[in-house]
Amino acid sequence: MLDKAPNGRVSELLATLDQALSAGDVERALDLFQTDCYWRDLVAFTWNIKTMEGKDQVRAMLEARLAETRPTNWKIADGEDSTEADGITESWIQFETAVARGFGHLRLKDGRIWTLLTTMVELKGFEEPQGFDRPMGAKHGADRNRKTWKEEREQEAAELGITKQPYCLIIGGGQGGIALAARLRQLSVPTIVIEKNERPGDSWRKRYKSLCLHDPVWYDHLPYLPFPANWPVFSPKDKIGDWLEMYTKVMELNYWRKTTCKKATYDETAGEWTVVVERDGQEIVLKPKQLVLATGMSAKPNMPKFEGMELFKGDQHHSSQHPGPDAYKGKKAVVIGSNNSAHDICAALWEAGADVTMVQRSSTHIVKSDSLMEIGLGPLYSEQAVRSGMTTEKADLIFASLPYKILHEFQIPIYNAIRERDADFYKRLEAAGFMLDFGDDDSGLFMKYLRRGSGYYIDVGASELVANGSIKLKSGVDVQRLTEHAVILTDGTQLPADLVVYATGYGSMNGWAAELISKEVADKVGKCWGLGSNTRKDPGPWEGEQRNMWKPTQQPGLWFHGGNLHQSRHYSQFLSLQLKARMEGIPTPVYGLQQVHHLG
Amino acid sequence: MLDKAPNGRVSELLATLDQALSAGDVERALDLFQTDCYWRDLVAFTWNIKTMEGKDQVRAMLEARLAETRPTNWKIADGEDSTEADGITESWIQFETAVARGFGHLRLKDGRIWTLLTTMVELKGFEEPQGFDRPMGAKHGADRNRKTWKEEREQEAAELGITKQPYCLIIGGGQGGIALAARLRQLSVPTIVIEKNERPGDSWRKRYKSLCLHDPVWYDHLPYLPFPANWPVFSPKDKIGDWLEMYTKVMELNYWRKTTCKKATYDETAGEWTVVVERDGQEIVLKPKQLVLATGMSAKPNMPKFEGMELFKGDQHHSSQHPGPDAYKGKKAVVIGSNNSAHDICAALWEAGADVTMVQRSSTHIVKSDSLMEIGLGPLYSEQAVRSGMTTEKADLIFASLPYKILHEFQIPIYNAIRERDADFYKRLEAAGFMLDFGDDDSGLFMKYLRRGSGYYIDVGASELVANGSIKLKSGVDVQRLTEHAVILTDGTQLPADLVVYATGYGSMNGWAAELISKEVADKVGKCWGLGSNTRKDPGPWEGEQRNMWKPTQQPGLWFHGGNLHQSRHYSQFLSLQLKARMEGIPTPVYGLQQVHHLG
Repeated sequence: MLDKAPNGRVSELLATLDQALSAGDVERALDLFQTDCYWRDLVAFTWNIKTMEGKDQVRAMLEARLAETRPTNWKIADGEDSTEADGITESWIQFETAVARGFGHLRLKDGRIWTLLTTMVELKGFEEPQGFDRPMGAKHGADRNRKTWKEEREQEAAELGITKQPYCLIIGGGQGGIALAARLRQLSVPTIVIEKNERPGDSWRKRYKSLCLHDPVWYDHLPYLPFPANWPVFSPKDKIGDWLEMYTKVMELNYWRKTTCKKATYDETAGEWTVVVERDGQEIVLKPKQLVLATGMSAKPNMPKFEGMELFKGDQHHSSQHPGPDAYKGKKAVVIGSNNSAHDICAALWEAGADVTMVQRSSTHIVKSDSLMEIGLGPLYSEQAVRSGMTTEKADLIFASLPYKILHEFQIPIYNAIRERDADFYKRLEAAGFMLDFGDDDSGLFMKYLRRGSGYYIDVGASELVANGSIKLKSGVDVQRLTEHAVILTDGTQLPADLVVYATGYGSMNGWAAELISKEVADKVGKCWGLGSNTRKDPGPWEGEQRNMWKPTQQPGLWFHGGNLHQSRHYSQFLSLQLKARMEGIPTPVYGLQQVHHLG
Repeated sequence: MLDKAPNGRVSELLATLDQALSAGDVERALDLFQTDCYWRDLVAFTWNIKTMEGKDQVRAMLEARLAETRPTNWKIADGEDSTEADGITESWIQFETAVARGFGHLRLKDGRIWTLLTTMVELKGFEEPQGFDRPMGAKHGADRNRKTWKEEREQEAAELGITKQPYCLIIGGGQGGIALAARLRQLSVPTIVIEKNERPGDSWRKRYKSLCLHDPVWYDHLPYLPFPANWPVFSPKDKIGDWLEMYTKVMELNYWRKTTCKKATYDETAGEWTVVVERDGQEIVLKPKQLVLATGMSAKPNMPKFEGMELFKGDQHHSSQHPGPDAYKGKKAVVIGSNNSAHDICAALWEAGADVTMVQRSSTHIVKSDSLMEIGLGPLYSEQAVRSGMTTEKADLIFASLPYKILHEFQIPIYNAIRERDADFYKRLEAAGFMLDFGDDDSGLFMKYLRRGSGYYIDVGASELVANGSIKLKSGVDVQRLTEHAVILTDGTQLPADLVVYATGYGSMNGWAAELISKEVADKVGKCWGLGSNTRKDPGPWEGEQRNMWKPTQQPGLWFHGGNLHQSRHYSQFLSLQLKARMEGIPTPVYGLQQVHHLG
């Protein structure tokens, strides 16, 4: 027999919560929470992405939002059982609000709510046509003048953006724009994605040739159409490019290739954007209500300014422009930087027979790919997790249920274990002069990613080349200047160079707002990404969520969408529901709108 | 508590079977079978697709094959429970042979085996790289001269068929060829698919424009990559075309577009084919060991010869060549035939505003699409089935577990129920003069499909047009002759015509063998498809399986693969394993090789 005791406890608590919330009795509801409680809400209560930390914040949110949200029918999710381990009771839960159905996750400590995740699944009356509700395809019966699927698709493609305006325009047709557009199509939100490249997937294809995804396949599924069981663990860049291209086609996205955004302006009164785009050489003006920048959280290159760059006679470019190693066999290459791209490019250049030096200017977090997979992602995203019944959706929600405020506490033990497991590896790297770190608080890679989106390398082989001297290393120095044929470092070292690669990272996404809209709008919105953790490159104050991502900003009608494939998949659900609600005129009062503390 | 009694009974029987077979004691094993038993084997024991009917046939097979097959480890399949209903105990089972792992299905009646299905799942040592064994994609470590995924794919594409010979050549790149090639790739069998059209999926795209699949989505999944939950129930032809095209790409098939086979000859001594193909205008000679005709079980048009056809001044063509209705608005069209294509074409012509007459020469089986879906396919292939835990793989195996000899007995009640449900509909059709049948033994559509591949229409709307006279009907007549501007029927009716469509069906697949190889080989192989049921267009003697499909033929190295998407998916598993075993030199003595009773 299954121990039904946790089910009973959770059911009882949910019944009490239901009664209290239905009665508008905020204090009674608060009695069910721990003092150190966290309630993370993805759109269901706040029309925002928001974590309430502690009872006061929960109280304030409920006082502002309870009357309108009208949550009911709290219960253990259909087909699920609550579980108990280490004094924590966990449960999948479901609930409804006045306008939506919700799903969530609950952790109880000492019988009270420690963490609560509430997410919006679907808007009532606007459910996605799936499963029992999938389209018929064939139109049975006979009807003169009916159109075929192909004719309807062609008509839509011919009209949208020309004689009919899209409700939503997504700038950037990488994984983020594609995943969001797929969800918006299922929600019948007329959407155009514009992409500067010729084919969907080109933003991967055009990168350096040895590139493979650094995240494993279980973490990378797109919505609706998971990778098959024979898909490689780490997708080669051209293969993921092909997948994105076919996905765009079979999901029937309105995807404008070879199209760039020239200028976007917002009419506050009309609540409408005017966006001038150039589509394959032709200028077209679009008038969407909503504008999504899915231009890549790592797409605006930071190009450094070093003295003498203009004198240098060899090739020099930002890592994002690096064509791959083929032209550099037997040449001298200097790579400035020591994060993911720097390592991948150094290794590929070495493999192609170049003489490579990496210039490490500050410490870097290194974690071996297999250790990260096994210890870091394994419990949620791995073949083992799949076999034990973990779905992608549940893994995403469990991950989402851990409050950012305490996420580092869950991460530190993982990286301590990795440090122990790979102690020899780290020792050899340090012996080669490499400057290592594990983040300001030793919380490792994922926190670095969330806080600053940089500062690490997931080792797939380059570290061995650094350790054994195949890739030469200069660390703890910076570039002083360039000459015609060399890079001069601050310690006086002269590195002869035919090629200099600046693997110097990327700027905040609101740089795109500055470029495409205006400096004023970029400043009004402020910096994107980061948590306000007051660690290096992530200044406070504490935000509780990632700045400006997938949620309303200070600029009405402007949204930022991006991140890795996991985030593109998971957060596109919540962004698409926010956009759909606005299109349908469902009131969406935003609780706790993003404040601006940094300009980017 | 689950009732474990059926598990106990099945386990006991399997243990006895295991002992008897391990001891080579055929009679003791036979004691476990009913007198009216059926053992259907897909490759595991017979290296053939073969149903043993009754104890004598089981005995003969075991005497021939037991010693070499060496089956062991018979047990209830991992994670499954036996069930009992209506006096029948059912169970999923697993077993091993000397060279393979098997999965199967068992039905006990009065404690003895009534039906047994044994299927080969994988060859030991040649398992597909899936799940835990999926490829890494990224090659961790560093290695000078290593190639990227893209470079390897490009090299393979450049070499295969030019400097390296494929082990297998598949002629025909429709759903059959594509599904088989996908499995062969996973098994590392070097394979080329040649296709006359420009793009994968064109064999669907090029058909009449209103065409949608007549089978619902749950029945149509391809291997490895199921359709997503938002896929339409009945795929429009262009949408399934796009899916096949993307599938070909992401499954990395070596697919030669715009390529036709000119001539194939077999060298018995070398065990090798010489196949002359024309690839985009260039002649190339291929030397595969195995040749698969996946040219479509309905791809060789039956063009009738009527007196006066050469005089006719209007358009006339076989249904497979019909361009769609757009040019025939206001014109007079005569469609000869009354099966699927005839109905679809008549309806589309009517919708486009043509004056349409259908000439029904013999009775036709009609079943409404929704009735077929709900009553015919629902328990195995439907959203309801999915929700109740039925997987595509299990549905295929349950279907495969019903012996052809008695399959009609399971089908007759289904069609009786449909007749009752749709009695009004059938009455109205007959009132319009339409000649109905439900098959010689009232077993309905699927038996007609298996026996003759023709003789029916799945109604998606055209029957209403026939019933209400929108599509004019002449039934119980044949064509006597054509004149310059009319079709003259045997009852003297003169049908003025601007267009005549011959929806007169297709010939047997061995017509392709005659055309591409020789009349001698076609005759040596004999007719394809059909069961030998001694019903109309399916002459006896009884075969027990479909003639020549997916299994060895009298011509070494020649295989026929085809059928609907279900069959393409399911039988490609067994054909691919037969081919792989031959490539690896695993002995594959064929038990009960196809005999030839009809030339085609």
